[in-house]
This record gives sequence, structure tokens and C-alpha cells, in this order.
Amino acid sequence: MKAPRILETALYVRDIAEAVQFYSDILGLELVRESSERNAFFRCGDGILLLFKADETLKPALNADFAVPVHGTYGPGHICFAASRDELSAWRQYLIDHGIAIEQELKWPNGAHSLYFRDPSGNSLEFGEPKLWA
Amino acid sequence: MKAPRILETALYVRDIAEAVQFYSDILGLELVRESSERNAFFRCGDGILLLFKADETLKPALNADFAVPVHGTYGPGHICFAASRDELSAWRQYLIDHGIAIEQELKWPNGAHSLYFRDPSGNSLEFGEPKLWA
Repeated sequence: MKAPRILETALYVRDIAEAVQFYSDILGLELVRESSERNAFFRCGDGILLLFKADETLKPALNADFAVPVHGTYGPGHICFAASRDELSAWRQYLIDHGIAIEQELKWPNGAHSLYFRDPSGNSLEFGEPKLWA
Repeated sequence: MKAPRILETALYVRDIAEAVQFYSDILGLELVRESSERNAFFRCGDGILLLFKADETLKPALNADFAVPVHGTYGPGHICFAASRDELSAWRQYLIDHGIAIEQELKWPNGAHSLYFRDPSGNSLEFGEPKLWA
């Protein structure tokens, strides 16, 4: 058997309200439903980006009927969003215009480009060309 | 602007070789290239699952030409793989047959089902019906 595709990707943040502002206002993602102090869920393509506050999700669930297993990490995680070369250029300028520092830009051996920046919690975010993995 | 889709999802594991065995032999994922003691990269649908050893990725890069920004987390992370109801039943039996404990099963208010288990590092993995997010 083979796991077919990733439906949910999670990052852990220090403050949900601060993160919601960043992921919705800067990255343009739509909340699936209202966020809480514990989590925020965004639609992204045909998947979902989950943001959690680890201090909360490491506690046993309050509602035994929906007792999701405990999880939660500390330290800077990483995700990469797909972007074409043109989109990458547009994001570079857009991030700079919005006061987000570009931490690194890389050109990989196969010619794909990547652009790195941080969310307010220090997670390492990337826009990268899908051909990096072709 | 709007981040269009997630290309790379990352989990952090205690031992790459142990994790590679689990993600390839149990979850059926294909390595994109040979793994190292630092990382392993798997294709999953149109995305990539990155496994990292945080002790390594939190060190500054050795090769200045490919200096990916440092990242790395400790504690149990979470991802969910998409699965239809029938696939979920098949995975339940398959995991049990392979000695993987089912930690939890949930039926959500909208009728979607989820199945939770752990990787060898304690990351919380899920198979879930995409309609959970419809």
C-alpha cells in the first residue's frame, strides 16, 4: 500500500493570532473556520495548513469524543510553497514591500530557484519551483 | 497574492535510517534520492515529504553555496495523508498486520473518519477523509 498524498501539513507557532495575521494578510491563505487560541486551519491548494500552539496541543484533549492524539513541536519547522520562476520574483518584491526579510535565495544544481523567509514564530518558509523535485 | 499549494512538508525524526524503513516499507513512499544521516526526501502525490534529523539541520550548512536556512524541531509533529473510507479500512488492517498500533479513530461531526498512529519517532500520523475539510 502507498500513502497517496498529504492532506494536512502542520506548523507550530508561538501565538495563533499573530500567525493568522501573517498567513492570511501576507500569504493570502483563507481560514477554513474561525481560529482559536489553540489552532488555525488554512486551505492551501487541495491541502490544509494547520497552525498549532504546542503548549495547548500537547495537553490531553478536553473533549473525549474528539480526542486527537497529543502532538506539538518546539523549534523552527519548515514548509515550502510551490511557485513558478515568475511567481518567485513577484513574491520577492511583495515580501520586501511588506517588510518581510528575504533570508536566503538559492539556485539548485538542476536550475530550480528557492526563496526563504521566516514567519513571526521563526518557522523557515520557502517558495520553490516544483522542478526542484522533477 | 496567495500561496497556491504546499510543495514540501517536513517532519523531524530521531533516526533517519529507522524512519526511511518505516516510510518506505510501511507507508509505501518512494525516496526521491538516496537518504543520508541528515535527511530523507519522499515523493507523495504532487508534493514531497521531507524527513530531517533536527540535531543536524539546526547546524549551519556545511556548503555555503547551498546554505539552506537552519531549521529543526523537537517533539511530536503531525501530518495527515488523504484516504477514502475504503482506503481507511484497508490501512487499519494493514497497519495492524504490520504491528503498528492504531492510537485513535475519530468520526468527525461532518461524518469524515480519521485514523491515527505514530511513526517510530513518535510523530502523530493520520489517514483522513478529505471531506473532513469540504
